[in-house]
Amino acid sequence: MKNFADRLIEVIQEKGSPIAVGLDPQLQYLPQEIKDKAFKDHGQGLRGASWAILEFNRKVLDVVSPYTGVVKLQVAFYELLGPWGMEAYRKTIAYAQKKGLVTIGDIKRGDVEHTALAYAQAHLGEVKLDKTTLQGYGTDSVTLNPYLGGDSIAPFLKVAGEKAKGLFILVKTTNPSSRDFQDLSASDGERFFEKVAKKVGQWGKGLIGKNGYSSVGAVVGAQYPRAANRLRRLIPRAFFLVPGYGAQGAGARGLDAYFNADGYGAIISSSRSIIFAYLYPPGGGIRPRQTRRQKSGKTTDWEEAIRQAVVKMHSEVAEAAERAKRRSSRRL
Amino acid sequence: MKNFADRLIEVIQEKGSPIAVGLDPQLQYLPQEIKDKAFKDHGQGLRGASWAILEFNRKVLDVVSPYTGVVKLQVAFYELLGPWGMEAYRKTIAYAQKKGLVTIGDIKRGDVEHTALAYAQAHLGEVKLDKTTLQGYGTDSVTLNPYLGGDSIAPFLKVAGEKAKGLFILVKTTNPSSRDFQDLSASDGERFFEKVAKKVGQWGKGLIGKNGYSSVGAVVGAQYPRAANRLRRLIPRAFFLVPGYGAQGAGARGLDAYFNADGYGAIISSSRSIIFAYLYPPGGGIRPRQTRRQKSGKTTDWEEAIRQAVVKMHSEVAEAAERAKRRSSRRL
Repeated sequence: MKNFADRLIEVIQEKGSPIAVGLDPQLQYLPQEIKDKAFKDHGQGLRGASWAILEFNRKVLDVVSPYTGVVKLQVAFYELLGPWGMEAYRKTIAYAQKKGLVTIGDIKRGDVEHTALAYAQAHLGEVKLDKTTLQGYGTDSVTLNPYLGGDSIAPFLKVAGEKAKGLFILVKTTNPSSRDFQDLSASDGERFFEKVAKKVGQWGKGLIGKNGYSSVGAVVGAQYPRAANRLRRLIPRAFFLVPGYGAQGAGARGLDAYFNADGYGAIISSSRSIIFAYLYPPGGGIRPRQTRRQKSGKTTDWEEAIRQAVVKMHSEVAEAAERAKRRSSRRL
Repeated sequence: MKNFADRLIEVIQEKGSPIAVGLDPQLQYLPQEIKDKAFKDHGQGLRGASWAILEFNRKVLDVVSPYTGVVKLQVAFYELLGPWGMEAYRKTIAYAQKKGLVTIGDIKRGDVEHTALAYAQAHLGEVKLDKTTLQGYGTDSVTLNPYLGGDSIAPFLKVAGEKAKGLFILVKTTNPSSRDFQDLSASDGERFFEKVAKKVGQWGKGLIGKNGYSSVGAVVGAQYPRAANRLRRLIPRAFFLVPGYGAQGAGARGLDAYFNADGYGAIISSSRSIIFAYLYPPGGGIRPRQTRRQKSGKTTDWEEAIRQAVVKMHSEVAEAAERAKRRSSRRL
């Protein structure tokens, strides 16, 4: 089994850009013809809705997989659709993996040790029953919330070590209220998120691959290049998962702060602005907008709109990684 | 619709003690005859396993419902069993509510705003599809992780207001590593968990019931009576959900610190030491032990062992609440 961080670097090299596409399917934004067919074939309830998002995900994956090596699934949008939604989650992961993609389950779990073990087994490991052992949801990595501290991460470290999986610990999140607690200064002047980052560095020491990166990474929002600069020095071996590019407001400027001098160390992630690209007005915007055309019938060329969006992101992010390399060679 | 905190006080009065029983079903500890039947009827896989925990939960609820007004479900143990497990989660909640119990979904979710809304709809609210609106998992309340700050809590506050639901925000958790971040001192000398507690007080201001308590409570582990004393003064209107009594090491001593002078304001919760009481050695212990008898055949009198454990807890906790009242009347 190959170390998770090494696999990340492999797919980044293969696809030519360190990006992740987020599969956060919200029913109201799906092309109407996909929903109509799913509800007709599988009923108007949660089963039909889950089938619609699975079918949408498959088509999105067909479009984006030449350009991205990584996909991130926000589990909340599957959990919303009940047990059928979780079946769509499982099937989407399997489909992405069949296409050779590395998957991130954006679960943000965090609990006391014996409960954290259940989550780790469910999402990364195996589920032991009386007479059988089954694979859980089987993502290649998950995001975790650090509020409960080291023993809440330990079971995930154990399973990650056994199964060559990856973890991304929330350090500094994209949302404005991340300042409420994450930005508080401790008595020694360090901010809370820096305390968390240091622990991330410690937790990851046992899982470093041949490229020098650890399978234990950090979630750092795309809006904070100055914080990223500081964190990059604090935990150089951690891969940063960087949400917030695109719909959440951050552009490609400043992204180079998230990369190391080798051009690696960050995965830039975008969800809505890629998978719902066909609903954004030409100048961009924060939220997808349902047009009358989308509401009432066939959504023309939605796959082409997604393709154009991912191509643009692919090149912008690849350039940012290149800038980080050039910046550092100038420094020498 | 009655305010959630008022409903809590109502069931506490009805049952005579402010306790919660935790339904954290781990397959390996279930009575063998329940598992055998479930696997025979529903297959050796996740469906059979989920059916076993559902059947176990129903029997536990039949035993404990005369003594407890509140049950807490740790969703990780259902999530572990995949989509079928989540169906058992939903059905257990419905069964408990049919018996008049107040349910707490121990989900510890926390995410950015539009994702948090999906979780809030899934667990407390309604799921809107194209042509139908369905109830989600339908618990009366959930636990939440505060690391992402105010805008990650806001969607839950909104749904809680609309549907008369409750929230319990993690403040100081039971696990030893809770000291890693929660106990850090901020630059003004206050500890991090106290910063969170103050926000809990602010978030709960709009949801105060006729008894003076808010529907926004705090999770505070049973091992910290000194911290509880301080928190009790800091956020007097918050209901404390207090795990850690029993299997996680804390006894009934010190519990009075968690109550207000009116004898309310805390729900003491125990999971393993109640529902797996038949597996503990006579002197107690941290983990259930599988005896040879339990492994190989019929588990005699397991329901009676659970009944005795919940009766003991009922009286110990009721006494602690009484002590809090007496202590405060002496003070006058």
